[in-house]
Amino acid sequence: MKRSERLVDMTKYLMERPHDLIPLPFFAKRYGAAKSSISEDLAILKHTLANNQDGILETVAGAAGGVRYIPFWGKKHAQNYLNELATRIEDPDRILAGGFVYLSDILGNPEDLDKIGKLIATRYAYSNIDIVMTIETKGIALAQAVARYLNVPFIIARKRSKVTEGATVSVNYISSSLDRVSKMELPTRVLKENSNVLLVDDFMMAGGTLTGMQQLVKEFNSNIAGVCVLCEADFDDVKLIEGHLSLVKIKRVDDKKKVIMAEPGSLVAHTDFDRF
Amino acid sequence: MKRSERLVDMTKYLMERPHDLIPLPFFAKRYGAAKSSISEDLAILKHTLANNQDGILETVAGAAGGVRYIPFWGKKHAQNYLNELATRIEDPDRILAGGFVYLSDILGNPEDLDKIGKLIATRYAYSNIDIVMTIETKGIALAQAVARYLNVPFIIARKRSKVTEGATVSVNYISSSLDRVSKMELPTRVLKENSNVLLVDDFMMAGGTLTGMQQLVKEFNSNIAGVCVLCEADFDDVKLIEGHLSLVKIKRVDDKKKVIMAEPGSLVAHTDFDRF
Repeated sequence: MKRSERLVDMTKYLMERPHDLIPLPFFAKRYGAAKSSISEDLAILKHTLANNQDGILETVAGAAGGVRYIPFWGKKHAQNYLNELATRIEDPDRILAGGFVYLSDILGNPEDLDKIGKLIATRYAYSNIDIVMTIETKGIALAQAVARYLNVPFIIARKRSKVTEGATVSVNYISSSLDRVSKMELPTRVLKENSNVLLVDDFMMAGGTLTGMQQLVKEFNSNIAGVCVLCEADFDDVKLIEGHLSLVKIKRVDDKKKVIMAEPGSLVAHTDFDRF
Repeated sequence: MKRSERLVDMTKYLMERPHDLIPLPFFAKRYGAAKSSISEDLAILKHTLANNQDGILETVAGAAGGVRYIPFWGKKHAQNYLNELATRIEDPDRILAGGFVYLSDILGNPEDLDKIGKLIATRYAYSNIDIVMTIETKGIALAQAVARYLNVPFIIARKRSKVTEGATVSVNYISSSLDRVSKMELPTRVLKENSNVLLVDDFMMAGGTLTGMQQLVKEFNSNIAGVCVLCEADFDDVKLIEGHLSLVKIKRVDDKKKVIMAEPGSLVAHTDFDRF
């Protein structure tokens, strides 16, 4: 196979397997090429990705070595996208009764989900995440998008247990309205002990739901490696949670005046982009 | 930019935008290259994808022309994966009370979701799908995976309305147990009239839930372009629906004897793979 064909196939192969370590002999065999040729191919791939600030090709030396494609987005890309996203969220048509914000179009748009997933996966690319966790229903799309770029499974806490999940562990938590105790549960078989869990959700008011998820993770003797939400309501003074990151901060929602104000959240400031 | 670098970037660019028509002048400008060079690059990409039976690069001639990457999986890939999937589903640990089958590990695994999404997107690649629709909760991962490869939005019918969705349209349907009438709804703003809708769901018993979704689509004056489920219970004699496709057929679930029997479903036989 020619270099040009190898490069096409290799790019596709690696992109479809983020974070997987692929040994060089695998490619040498796949293409019937010398290891030195494969190394040259990978060097081309590496600097092309780095030039675009869109993905890192990591080389791991030694007998157990190989290459690994890390989805990783440059700071400029991140800032541009979050500015655009915040502006789109400021559309007054998104305002729903009770200060809620309509986000289902974004959470059902594959292009947005890819960008959001890539951005969150960039932040946690080197955090040894074992699994992504969310709660039904709207967080699911987000969890799936992030899990795909980190190439780890994702799991879903449920508000009501279903017969199709088997045995579950449940916890009580204070729901967003802060005046009601609710229940969430997770099937016992989905989470192993000592897992490094990344929590994601679509929208955070006071953070009650996220504290429920934190409790659930503790019940499974696992560890919270990070908490990240798409939108955080910055006008809500009471916060039940600390150390979470957000992609967008919603500063104000005025149902009467039809005004919604948003800006990029804390994610970019807390991401180490100096890998390129 | 050299050809080798162009090929890496072009492969990545096209893979991230399935079904989008990219005009040739766009690439010529992006790389500062002649259109003839870009055409040669695309020819390399095209035959590399075709050789692997993993993706089609379509060329559209004329002034409004360009190229389009269509995720499309060859018959062999499809058959191998579905055989593997059926075997994995036969694991007796998946049997839950009441003849249900545990599938959350598959529905939370990015690699499986990518393959399942690619396979369903192959079947409907030329069906002019405008939007993918499912019902909460487990169908969501499937809808997202398919929508990503078709590069169209996806929407989620809910069993209970939420305050964060605004106005909804609701229908009644006969739920899987066939002895209960349930309600499902869809926000009015998520589906335009005359849309071509692909329905997907994780598991089908008699098909009551799918008939509910069909009714909902009709209420929006839209059209069902296809119905596809991950698993279909083949032991259930009553079928409320016709013309649906499945990836896996579950022939038997015996809770007492701990036996579950599965085989590839109807999808492959109803897919036209002769595009390579």
